[in-house]
Amino acid sequence: MEYRIEKDTMGEVKVPAQAYWGAQTQRSIDNFKIAADINKMPKEIIAAFAYLKKAAALTNEQLGVLPKEKADLIAQVADEVLAGQLLDQFPLVVWQTGSGTQSNMNANEVIAYRAHVLHGGQLTDKEKFLHPNDDVNKSQSSNDTFPTAMHIAAYKILIENTIPHLTELRDTLKKKAEDFKKVVKIGRTHFMDATPLTLGQEFSGYAAQLTHGLKAIQNTLAHLSELALGGTAVGTGINTPKGYAKLVAEKIAELTGLPFITANNKFEALAAHDAIVEAHGALKTVAVSLMKIGNDIRMLSSGPRSGIGEIHIPDNEPGSSIMPGKVNPTQCEALTMIAAQVLGNDVAINIGGATGHFELNVFKPMMIYNFLHSARLIGDGCKSFNDKCAVGIEPIEANIKKHVDNSLMLVTALNPKIGYYKAAEIAQTAHKNGSTLKETAVALGYLTPEQFDEWVVPVNMCGDID
Amino acid sequence: MEYRIEKDTMGEVKVPAQAYWGAQTQRSIDNFKIAADINKMPKEIIAAFAYLKKAAALTNEQLGVLPKEKADLIAQVADEVLAGQLLDQFPLVVWQTGSGTQSNMNANEVIAYRAHVLHGGQLTDKEKFLHPNDDVNKSQSSNDTFPTAMHIAAYKILIENTIPHLTELRDTLKKKAEDFKKVVKIGRTHFMDATPLTLGQEFSGYAAQLTHGLKAIQNTLAHLSELALGGTAVGTGINTPKGYAKLVAEKIAELTGLPFITANNKFEALAAHDAIVEAHGALKTVAVSLMKIGNDIRMLSSGPRSGIGEIHIPDNEPGSSIMPGKVNPTQCEALTMIAAQVLGNDVAINIGGATGHFELNVFKPMMIYNFLHSARLIGDGCKSFNDKCAVGIEPIEANIKKHVDNSLMLVTALNPKIGYYKAAEIAQTAHKNGSTLKETAVALGYLTPEQFDEWVVPVNMCGDID
Amino acid sequence: MEYRIEKDTMGEVKVPAQAYWGAQTQRSIDNFKIAADINKMPKEIIAAFAYLKKAAALTNEQLGVLPKEKADLIAQVADEVLAGQLLDQFPLVVWQTGSGTQSNMNANEVIAYRAHVLHGGQLTDKEKFLHPNDDVNKSQSSNDTFPTAMHIAAYKILIENTIPHLTELRDTLKKKAEDFKKVVKIGRTHFMDATPLTLGQEFSGYAAQLTHGLKAIQNTLAHLSELALGGTAVGTGINTPKGYAKLVAEKIAELTGLPFITANNKFEALAAHDAIVEAHGALKTVAVSLMKIGNDIRMLSSGPRSGIGEIHIPDNEPGSSIMPGKVNPTQCEALTMIAAQVLGNDVAINIGGATGHFELNVFKPMMIYNFLHSARLIGDGCKSFNDKCAVGIEPIEANIKKHVDNSLMLVTALNPKIGYYKAAEIAQTAHKNGSTLKETAVALGYLTPEQFDEWVVPVNMCGDID
Amino acid sequence: MEYRIEKDTMGEVKVPAQAYWGAQTQRSIDNFKIAADINKMPKEIIAAFAYLKKAAALTNEQLGVLPKEKADLIAQVADEVLAGQLLDQFPLVVWQTGSGTQSNMNANEVIAYRAHVLHGGQLTDKEKFLHPNDDVNKSQSSNDTFPTAMHIAAYKILIENTIPHLTELRDTLKKKAEDFKKVVKIGRTHFMDATPLTLGQEFSGYAAQLTHGLKAIQNTLAHLSELALGGTAVGTGINTPKGYAKLVAEKIAELTGLPFITANNKFEALAAHDAIVEAHGALKTVAVSLMKIGNDIRMLSSGPRSGIGEIHIPDNEPGSSIMPGKVNPTQCEALTMIAAQVLGNDVAINIGGATGHFELNVFKPMMIYNFLHSARLIGDGCKSFNDKCAVGIEPIEANIKKHVDNSLMLVTALNPKIGYYKAAEIAQTAHKNGSTLKETAVALGYLTPEQFDEWVVPVNMCGDID
Repeated sequence: MEYRIEKDTMGEVKVPAQAYWGAQTQRSIDNFKIAADINKMPKEIIAAFAYLKKAAALTNEQLGVLPKEKADLIAQVADEVLAGQLLDQFPLVVWQTGSGTQSNMNANEVIAYRAHVLHGGQLTDKEKFLHPNDDVNKSQSSNDTFPTAMHIAAYKILIENTIPHLTELRDTLKKKAEDFKKVVKIGRTHFMDATPLTLGQEFSGYAAQLTHGLKAIQNTLAHLSELALGGTAVGTGINTPKGYAKLVAEKIAELTGLPFITANNKFEALAAHDAIVEAHGALKTVAVSLMKIGNDIRMLSSGPRSGIGEIHIPDNEPGSSIMPGKVNPTQCEALTMIAAQVLGNDVAINIGGATGHFELNVFKPMMIYNFLHSARLIGDGCKSFNDKCAVGIEPIEANIKKHVDNSLMLVTALNPKIGYYKAAEIAQTAHKNGSTLKETAVALGYLTPEQFDEWVVPVNMCGDID
Repeated sequence: MEYRIEKDTMGEVKVPAQAYWGAQTQRSIDNFKIAADINKMPKEIIAAFAYLKKAAALTNEQLGVLPKEKADLIAQVADEVLAGQLLDQFPLVVWQTGSGTQSNMNANEVIAYRAHVLHGGQLTDKEKFLHPNDDVNKSQSSNDTFPTAMHIAAYKILIENTIPHLTELRDTLKKKAEDFKKVVKIGRTHFMDATPLTLGQEFSGYAAQLTHGLKAIQNTLAHLSELALGGTAVGTGINTPKGYAKLVAEKIAELTGLPFITANNKFEALAAHDAIVEAHGALKTVAVSLMKIGNDIRMLSSGPRSGIGEIHIPDNEPGSSIMPGKVNPTQCEALTMIAAQVLGNDVAINIGGATGHFELNVFKPMMIYNFLHSARLIGDGCKSFNDKCAVGIEPIEANIKKHVDNSLMLVTALNPKIGYYKAAEIAQTAHKNGSTLKETAVALGYLTPEQFDEWVVPVNMCGDID
Repeated sequence: MEYRIEKDTMGEVKVPAQAYWGAQTQRSIDNFKIAADINKMPKEIIAAFAYLKKAAALTNEQLGVLPKEKADLIAQVADEVLAGQLLDQFPLVVWQTGSGTQSNMNANEVIAYRAHVLHGGQLTDKEKFLHPNDDVNKSQSSNDTFPTAMHIAAYKILIENTIPHLTELRDTLKKKAEDFKKVVKIGRTHFMDATPLTLGQEFSGYAAQLTHGLKAIQNTLAHLSELALGGTAVGTGINTPKGYAKLVAEKIAELTGLPFITANNKFEALAAHDAIVEAHGALKTVAVSLMKIGNDIRMLSSGPRSGIGEIHIPDNEPGSSIMPGKVNPTQCEALTMIAAQVLGNDVAINIGGATGHFELNVFKPMMIYNFLHSARLIGDGCKSFNDKCAVGIEPIEANIKKHVDNSLMLVTALNPKIGYYKAAEIAQTAHKNGSTLKETAVALGYLTPEQFDEWVVPVNMCGDID
Repeated sequence: MEYRIEKDTMGEVKVPAQAYWGAQTQRSIDNFKIAADINKMPKEIIAAFAYLKKAAALTNEQLGVLPKEKADLIAQVADEVLAGQLLDQFPLVVWQTGSGTQSNMNANEVIAYRAHVLHGGQLTDKEKFLHPNDDVNKSQSSNDTFPTAMHIAAYKILIENTIPHLTELRDTLKKKAEDFKKVVKIGRTHFMDATPLTLGQEFSGYAAQLTHGLKAIQNTLAHLSELALGGTAVGTGINTPKGYAKLVAEKIAELTGLPFITANNKFEALAAHDAIVEAHGALKTVAVSLMKIGNDIRMLSSGPRSGIGEIHIPDNEPGSSIMPGKVNPTQCEALTMIAAQVLGNDVAINIGGATGHFELNVFKPMMIYNFLHSARLIGDGCKSFNDKCAVGIEPIEANIKKHVDNSLMLVTALNPKIGYYKAAEIAQTAHKNGSTLKETAVALGYLTPEQFDEWVVPVNMCGDID
């Protein structure tokens, strides 16, 4: 490969001749050969940097500390990045400096050098029209840009992927609850037969879980909307012009269309990432819900002949390389694997959040990597589960009816009539003899066949089913 | 020990002669000899059961399904429990049935039998005036009472212990932020010297963390305020009188003084405990904050001679059995141990929440045990840390001044004057030579001594310090 | 309460008149009012301190640095503690100093003052015959005694509770595997019907899991057998006589009957608790196994009429306060709740282990609290599950036969005869038509009824079943 | 894009014309659009499938159930995969069916179709020379191949990356321990000054941690060496020729050069992945060690002027985009972020391991994804940390000497001479007065200057330093 020589404050570095990046990016490539093929800095962070670099440039210009020509060039390159044109210029990995300084410098260098070329210069020019630190990074530090990028990326992915797809799945489950509202089925508690409910009621519980989960996510957005930008090195805002912090947050809000504001306390915003910890706390809650829902649906659809078999889910693919004709609840499996992953990511985020020190948390790339991973998995996973499984769920009425008719727990309806103890005796006797509740109840002399038929009506045991 | 014979639907059981409990409690004692000396069902759950049994009895009476005399007796025993008089009658452990049925029956039995005695009966009477199932448990199931008790206990401990003590600590840190607002000190990022800030700013970050943490907890209260009661066996409300669910929640709200409401979806309220998962997500966020704060404070107070030594914390006790005169940041240690515990508890709760099936989650006792543990630890821990450490924190001005005077990162103030690269050269040269920034800057010819004195003023680097 | 005045290097403290403890214990009581009713320092740690204080005294005497009379008195009090006579003299909580110094001093004070009384003195004597630091703590520091107590307590509970009860359960499952070795049943993969196996084979998998888990625990014992004692303050062994470390470990081995040795590297033994982290890694592996086994057994026993119902587990207690006659797999529930708890404890331990600094990890009490909790829960939980559930498991042959006869996956036996694709067509057609495999296979013309009967024999599909 | 039509038992599917894969791979692409750009099935699993498909083919041939020509073709394609030539033919993601069936079919299809082309056929031929199920998958099921691939991949990465790089770092730390064995420094416990030790002793503790960690990993290899292959669908080995399981494991051992054996119990090997859970338990223990070591080294190197500053680590890159001349402990940061990630991955693996049901655990891809991630991160991370940081660590003797000279905890050496209480008085008085220990001790009249100089000699307090 051909190289050119780049310099930073530590000296010279060989950089691929055509790369837009400079010395500091290259040092990071050379110094951090860690899982480089699988753990690149997430593309959502690159995009977030483009937003904030553009916003900072425009704000710097407005406040009179950066010439318009430079600001416009920075904005132009930022737009190229947002259009996905320079993604190969961001080669760094997650496992770098814990402040993300190197990714901030990567952005600074690529923007400065690409701008220099747009301005008519050459990559080999010793002096460039824009300086990565003095121009592109003006009024900024890695210490406030990286957390700002974290919040932009986190907020955006929640709004654009996680929340809409979770909502879609919730709506499907709600529709199923409505569709199935008259399908009376056996309830199961402790995996054991219990009193009946409708399949619609069962699904309404799933929908309610996701409604609560969506609220839980929404509750954490306010903290995520606070941006560190303007805090610079340690939160004091050193080397920023007056009014900068508030204005740059407004610009970012404008560019992204999201309600970002400047953080009330910049020291917290650099030194801690509790907003990420808190918001991921909502994601882990959703993961817990999804694990429950995914498990229930695969168990309800189990069989086809030796399981519970009360619902049918779409047959998407042959399920076995050895067992012909087998079909499996694979969307449930992907969803529950995702849930497990999110619960693991949560712990990584907690540890990162807890292990910051003094003015700067230095687990930033790891934390946002896990956050974006979870938000993406839940979003993509809900969409996949919704489209390929949930929308196609149908009751298998024959099995549902068989189970409810057989159940001994219909006896519960007799409690207010004959008391818990006699009711228990009926159930236990029927269980021992393999007989029906009705014949047993009558044989024990506790009621007449007519009373049984009047009192034990599964649909009446389901409460309000509309 | 002397025994009497009690019966349930499975047959006879020997019960200690003087115990108010009956057959089902005794079966649980006999069947679950697991960590019995250390993991009793938390006392907060016992109290919550007293509230709900009383509320259910009064509601049953009001709706005409329970005679006043019985309702009054139930209320009377519940009041005894709330006064702490019958705690030894609740011998069951956490590691029992996952629905908490046995603790519900423990409450039913103790209330029924104690009421029978209050009513003039004997424990040995074959027929008692109240029946544990048919009277005390009327319009209830374990499946809705236990989750109701979980929410009552969780909400109460947050309101009565966690939130007030966390608030107290937050207020102390805020006051320290105010007290120390003029104390200029060196910042530290990556553990390395950085630009200055004030000690007050540093503490304002801690206070901001806890303010956010308090908001995070508050955000989860709405979900916790939803009570399952009225759902009975599977969420359908079988065997409850019309209007019961709403009314009993109002009664509980009245008795506890907390804004409980009936759960919008009872199927969710029995089958999932996402409210607990979500609320503990806020507690784990607070734990992350406390770990950060505890670590910072012990490192800032480290020394006394070979550490950082910028603050003094109260000397509470001799710190070493072998090193005479040693004093340690023990309150920080208790606090950070607590944080670790809460982060562990969070995972147990997540797994419990994720592993419910069909109409009932059966990890209830484990989940609430961990929740109450965390809420208690954070509450008690914040109080201890506040009273025995935080309130007594004082700056050690001599060390603070020495550190800020020595720091090479004051050079950052020169960026806007001479650019990042020359500033870097000054800092690197001073570091190599062990010289001061000022003499180095002048020697390199980048500025005059007067300029240095004008431009490099630590307090001016701290932004707005008021 | 009456008090006497005790002194330590910080001054005077009021201590309950009859308490054997002194000033430092009292300071800890006063300074750490955190979850005091539920989180006392575990009794296993108190006992471990008794062993090590006795061993240290005897070693000190043998090496000529402590008079025999004093050593004998120390040993005498230690024996009282081991006999359980002084447990109320150890009032401290887990949430104290992270080194456990206060519990070490608690032991030192109680032994010194009780010995003084045994020697004929009074608690109010200003000078006592033994000094807590200079005599009882001779050649020791909290920094090496507490980790030594951790290893003694951890090793002992594994040997005395966890391993034997886990072994017992494994043996029961193995016996069931043998008992059920001819019971051919349907297999289930992805919760869907699969090719058959025997119930014995299924149980042999559970037994194999626990056999591997037992090996995993055994593998970690070597690290746990290393004792820190002799490292004193920072690992250098300051203030210990020559030969002390090796000798005192031998004494502890002798007293406990366990193969303890002196740690090869004392710096590791004080500064890190990787042995605890590693050993708990084995416990969490066992928890994972137990969760799987507990879940399987409750699902296999689900029903009685609308579930899988292939095994019967003992009916231990009425399962519902509202549904008469219901019986639940409560032992499975306790076991799986325990598994979740252990997985949470693991995270707390990891965080504690990871957050030690320099010469001393100060998450010691929290780490050992969680370790002992897990070891106890697994031990007690396996015993309970074994005695109250596993030993009584029986197949329900009618259901097992029905499931295996119905299964479409018997078609797999035809792969080598007619190929995967034709076999799939048979299964899919039978599924669609609700017909049997045999009639479908013949109808499709792929084989004769005789061939079907020869080729499709469930027991032949189970491999070697002996 | 151009397509061709492929068929499976469910019907026709459009596949890219040039792709070697077939219908089932394509269905998975279409059905699982989840994080597809970042979570491809790990390349280590693809390689492991190549090994096992080759081994199975050769074994099938040897046992007479597959013609030599077919076996040779399978082996030839497998070798191409191992040479990295067909990686783009494995497009599936982690979040697919939990059994990994689709990746097994991907391997089967690519091998069959590529072999068909090698054999002179065309991708568009309706009949291919090899059938994915009947030939390539002969004597196999996804249910035994995927876990076999998991163990091959896990074992290999431990042997080839994790263990050697961890060993390298351990050796460097050991060498540093030797190099620094005479450098007397202050100890720190609770972050507070303690008695001295040598820098070599401090580093010996780190080396000892990793030595123990390596042993912990080694301890788990035996379980990982057990291969599921031969268990086929549910563990019974249906459709395998006699002797197959043992022989195929021997072939895999031969091909990989690793000591694989056939699993003793195939039911455990399919239904549980405790071997992965257990082995990752060792990795999390190592992560805990690395977090401790990384934290210590960055704190020891903190400063340069206002920190501890006792060691110098290599200056690898400019550390700040705003603070000129700043250098940060970035390798420590990458290492500690890695440690946090591994601790999170551990939880995901635990949950996956715990949530398997009946004959098959269906969290396989998620579990191995996390395992390989952790093993890779530890391996790559240790190498990076070793090469770019650890090998260059040097003591800063001036700071070390200053700290040890100032320390009040040297007073501990006086315990055996004047007792703990008088020693404490000296330290406390010196601390209060800001005086030296020596002048204070003499002023208090407890010893002569000569005695002090004789008794208080830091190097003598370090025990055996060779």
